[in-house]
Amino acid sequence: MNTVIEQLKSHRSVRKYKEKTISSEVLDQILEAATMASSSGNMQAYSIIVTEDEKMKEKMFKAHFEQSMLMEAPVFLTFCADFNRMRRWLKIRDAANNFDNFMSFMIGSIDAILASQNAAIAAESLGLGICYMGTTLASSTELSEILELPENVIPVVGFSLGYPDELPEKRKRLPIEGIIHKEKYQQYPFYEIAKIYEEKEREGMKRYQDVGIENLAKVYTEYKYTEESHIKYSKDLLGLLEKQRFLN
Amino acid sequence: MNTVIEQLKSHRSVRKYKEKTISSEVLDQILEAATMASSSGNMQAYSIIVTEDEKMKEKMFKAHFEQSMLMEAPVFLTFCADFNRMRRWLKIRDAANNFDNFMSFMIGSIDAILASQNAAIAAESLGLGICYMGTTLASSTELSEILELPENVIPVVGFSLGYPDELPEKRKRLPIEGIIHKEKYQQYPFYEIAKIYEEKEREGMKRYQDVGIENLAKVYTEYKYTEESHIKYSKDLLGLLEKQRFLN
Repeated sequence: MNTVIEQLKSHRSVRKYKEKTISSEVLDQILEAATMASSSGNMQAYSIIVTEDEKMKEKMFKAHFEQSMLMEAPVFLTFCADFNRMRRWLKIRDAANNFDNFMSFMIGSIDAILASQNAAIAAESLGLGICYMGTTLASSTELSEILELPENVIPVVGFSLGYPDELPEKRKRLPIEGIIHKEKYQQYPFYEIAKIYEEKEREGMKRYQDVGIENLAKVYTEYKYTEESHIKYSKDLLGLLEKQRFLN
Repeated sequence: MNTVIEQLKSHRSVRKYKEKTISSEVLDQILEAATMASSSGNMQAYSIIVTEDEKMKEKMFKAHFEQSMLMEAPVFLTFCADFNRMRRWLKIRDAANNFDNFMSFMIGSIDAILASQNAAIAAESLGLGICYMGTTLASSTELSEILELPENVIPVVGFSLGYPDELPEKRKRLPIEGIIHKEKYQQYPFYEIAKIYEEKEREGMKRYQDVGIENLAKVYTEYKYTEESHIKYSKDLLGLLEKQRFLN
């Protein structure tokens, strides 16, 4: 096992940070590594918003469901699918705009997410810690207003970034047999499902014991992710895609 | 600059591969590194299909627009948003299924893409090369049939994987000033757009000189990505999301 794989395998989300700020040299290294990620047709259809200002964090706090990492970390990075810049370039070069559609939103999202993971890995290699926050997408409408995103720009993923003040346990992952399919998708037989989720259930029930729900599956559906909330996020996001010209 | 960042910054897509096969030990290391990527709520809502069989590659060839990398590389990995496994687990644990909606498709896609980038970086650290193929999403309907994907599973990204038989030039990326926004999105003034795209235009016009189109922006819109094709992909993908229960 080489050092890169060792690093990837030792990833954990960090939610507590030291007060230490991040120098602009360190941040630039992280951002430059982000831009070297693969990108569809080398279009780089994404932008990164860097949040360091306390007042901006306060504005974003509610949209991020008041999660402490946002306020604790010196930096928050928001990765957006972005065809706005591309569109302006096409305009000055007298080229048509072919990107007001759903496929382009997905291409921009993929570019943004690949860049974000490069940034996360670069950050961890420099001794920093990160925590992705799914609220970036769940609250994409509110965040678009706060960050003043124009047409053709959607926040997709984001993470807090800082020097770790904790070393959490590594989270259990499904065994690779539970993730991998050879040649064709093999639907998991029910008797194997229990085995695949066994370790995760054991860990999860420890993690969520105070919630008082009988099993981890129900923790997910009754406590963490209700149908009502997911239908709302879906509706909000589809509405935002429409507004930002990404739903044709 | 440390070795991890050095590796990230030296990424290039590799399209020509040696005949050398990939051992199962090496492949497992790559796949295990993939599973350690961040994942929304640690749900790991994705699956990875490993293609090594020549006959399967032949079946996928047309869907991948007959790109040679698929046939040349010993392995192709398809990363799918997958709530099917989760759903079966919820079922045996008597939990509701809250994930038949667009938000869940996006969560699964993000998980799949983060895992794919971990796999790509692990592979490169072991001396292998990769090339992401956007056709995975453009042809998601055809590939779903070939790979026999059940409900709640959508192919999102994929790449060819093998030992490099070329070392292509590194592609030019936009300068970070063209990607980064401090605190709020600043729409790029037109006079700056030309500067941001300058190097890319120079490189692109060399790369596409034989196409005979006057500028790189038009190469994108008249040659590489037509409006017609993007509208078709969008329609296909939205149709597939509907069919796979991801459009509520």
